[in-house]
Amino acid sequence: MDIHELTRTLHLDNDSKIVMVVADGLGGLPRNPGGQTELESANTPHLDEIAGRGVCGLTVPVLPGITPGSGPGHLGLFGYDPLKYIIGRGVLEALGIDFDLGPQDVAIRGNFCTVDADGVITDRRAGRIPTETCVKLVHKLRAIRIDGVEIFVEPVRDYRLVVVFRGDGLDGAVADTDPQTVGAKPLAPKPRTPAAQRTADVAADFIHQAAEILQDERPANMLTLRGIAQRPPIPTMQEVYGLKAAAVAVYPMYRGLARLVGMDVPPPMADIGEQVAALQKNWDDYDFFFFHYKYTDSTGEDGNFDEKVRHLELLDAQIPHITALGPKVLIVTGDHSTPCTLKSHSWHPVPVLLAADTCRPDATKHFGESPCLSGGLGQFQAKYLLPLALAHAGRLQKFGA
Amino acid sequence: MDIHELTRTLHLDNDSKIVMVVADGLGGLPRNPGGQTELESANTPHLDEIAGRGVCGLTVPVLPGITPGSGPGHLGLFGYDPLKYIIGRGVLEALGIDFDLGPQDVAIRGNFCTVDADGVITDRRAGRIPTETCVKLVHKLRAIRIDGVEIFVEPVRDYRLVVVFRGDGLDGAVADTDPQTVGAKPLAPKPRTPAAQRTADVAADFIHQAAEILQDERPANMLTLRGIAQRPPIPTMQEVYGLKAAAVAVYPMYRGLARLVGMDVPPPMADIGEQVAALQKNWDDYDFFFFHYKYTDSTGEDGNFDEKVRHLELLDAQIPHITALGPKVLIVTGDHSTPCTLKSHSWHPVPVLLAADTCRPDATKHFGESPCLSGGLGQFQAKYLLPLALAHAGRLQKFGA
Repeated sequence: MDIHELTRTLHLDNDSKIVMVVADGLGGLPRNPGGQTELESANTPHLDEIAGRGVCGLTVPVLPGITPGSGPGHLGLFGYDPLKYIIGRGVLEALGIDFDLGPQDVAIRGNFCTVDADGVITDRRAGRIPTETCVKLVHKLRAIRIDGVEIFVEPVRDYRLVVVFRGDGLDGAVADTDPQTVGAKPLAPKPRTPAAQRTADVAADFIHQAAEILQDERPANMLTLRGIAQRPPIPTMQEVYGLKAAAVAVYPMYRGLARLVGMDVPPPMADIGEQVAALQKNWDDYDFFFFHYKYTDSTGEDGNFDEKVRHLELLDAQIPHITALGPKVLIVTGDHSTPCTLKSHSWHPVPVLLAADTCRPDATKHFGESPCLSGGLGQFQAKYLLPLALAHAGRLQKFGA
Repeated sequence: MDIHELTRTLHLDNDSKIVMVVADGLGGLPRNPGGQTELESANTPHLDEIAGRGVCGLTVPVLPGITPGSGPGHLGLFGYDPLKYIIGRGVLEALGIDFDLGPQDVAIRGNFCTVDADGVITDRRAGRIPTETCVKLVHKLRAIRIDGVEIFVEPVRDYRLVVVFRGDGLDGAVADTDPQTVGAKPLAPKPRTPAAQRTADVAADFIHQAAEILQDERPANMLTLRGIAQRPPIPTMQEVYGLKAAAVAVYPMYRGLARLVGMDVPPPMADIGEQVAALQKNWDDYDFFFFHYKYTDSTGEDGNFDEKVRHLELLDAQIPHITALGPKVLIVTGDHSTPCTLKSHSWHPVPVLLAADTCRPDATKHFGESPCLSGGLGQFQAKYLLPLALAHAGRLQKFGA
């Protein structure tokens, strides 16, 4: 049974506010054996104070050992089972450029590539052409016309682009055309289900026209399509929790993920100061705020331990502005771990703290991986965090008599 | 996979005894920030001694954040997935008055109400008429006759009554007639599935006759029906565990819940002393004993911290009488938390201790929420407690070769 079947019938309305601060890639590893993690090394007096009066634990983003991408990581935090709601790469890529993806749109990640005279791929990334070249080529591709389908072509960066098909009867179940190797021709776009035949035909037509447009370009004289997908049919947070939710996020992908679950997304903001201002400005109009902080992940991906520590301290310094608003429930956690020693997302459980009047406090006095290990929330799947927040906000009725 | 699929095939018989003491609403919260919970405040030397040699932990009654009613709370403790076996309110209400509900009976919670000359509800509880009036009106309603259906009408308390329909082809999938508001007429009893059409017709006939009988009464001149339901089809503990089980409980609802899973229920007893006596008397005849203690919940609902502490100490004082019987496995836990500060059931995990010769002991020396947090059982769903008890009782074979 999906926990949404419970929350749909049990949710209550009141005037409580829930704030979920997501420090992307929060969890880490010690720089040296026996040492402290990034979060443990950081001087975070405000987070520690909240950990002291709240309850801590660790979330498993998907399942033990599974490293999530940003999509599953965030869906889990929003309380959506990341194994049930699958976000295709094309969709994520479209969200990442703030493309306003409709529910039936088919979104595709495209790669410019180089092919020889026989059409065999010699460079899957077309020599990593600069973004300006990508923009120029995308502009040419916008000449492509296919009956009954509206086509969007958008540059991303370097050799990467996004293609979106909009029209009736489209279906994302079409296989990649990227053969994942040089020395092979791009594959034909094959439908994975009978219902996707038309979309496969549209993709084939698109590729055919693109090949003609690109044939005299060098080195980007062809493209491949990957991650062909539609948005999953996904109920909104209003539907499953009765929450009017807003995303306070700088980067498009996270704004897009929030839109997927029905959050409102205030106009773009440039930094955490503007995020705090947006939180203050919208405080009275929403029940739930998703506050996304990117730099704990990007510094982790860079393997820059000191910078990750510094950005954790910068986040900590903003926490009083959030607590000053008086949220009934304040959560601070991450969507996954990004240990600097690994320079990538990882499967390690993610520290979480939850502060509310109804907490059963634990002995945790510092926010860090080790203290969280003995926290009152234990280790649990991230998808249960939002129901817990609802409970502490007094927004869930009793189940059964 | 339901764990019952395993226990059905793996269970063994031996002469071990399992006792599960359920202190209703056991879990709590500190009275003041930084303070101790009810259980931690109580002086419980016997429970502490058992915690010292046994293993402790915390159970999640249903799922994180979900506050259970008594039905789901107890089903979980009996090892039945509370999300699979749903007990309707009518069924629970019938169990609560010790009504011997048959497997096909449709049980209904009724409320006397007041309607005006147009049939519009002006008071959903008929001025909270005294129980004596309820008994008098119920007696009149027993004149109702419907072909092919045996009808039982029983008083509960104040404006509340229980109606049971017994006969072939009945189905509980009928919607409430209570519009949940004054200023509206009672709703017609609508079938939620085609199979429930006849039951809806029976309910409509019942309401029609009841309205005629009650029309000259004041203020209770009408009634509404709620929580129309049948017992869920539920296998017995004998079937799924091979356990001959008995319930040693004072209050009807818990005796009824025990009957739902096939427990025998010795004659009513008045207090914990009589419960202990019943345990002693029936010791040789059963494998499993459910020992229910109500006062930890009722004092929690009252918000009376000191009284909850006192009743925990009273329970503790009886523990030596139970251990003296030499159970192979002794469990002490609750069906949910009822923190005095919340005056209601809550979602917080529930302390559990399990003592048996085969325990891997932990460092826990006191029975309380904080010590249990570092206990060897960890935090786990309550539905797994009974399989654990079977294992420690030597009643489960190895799974697979």
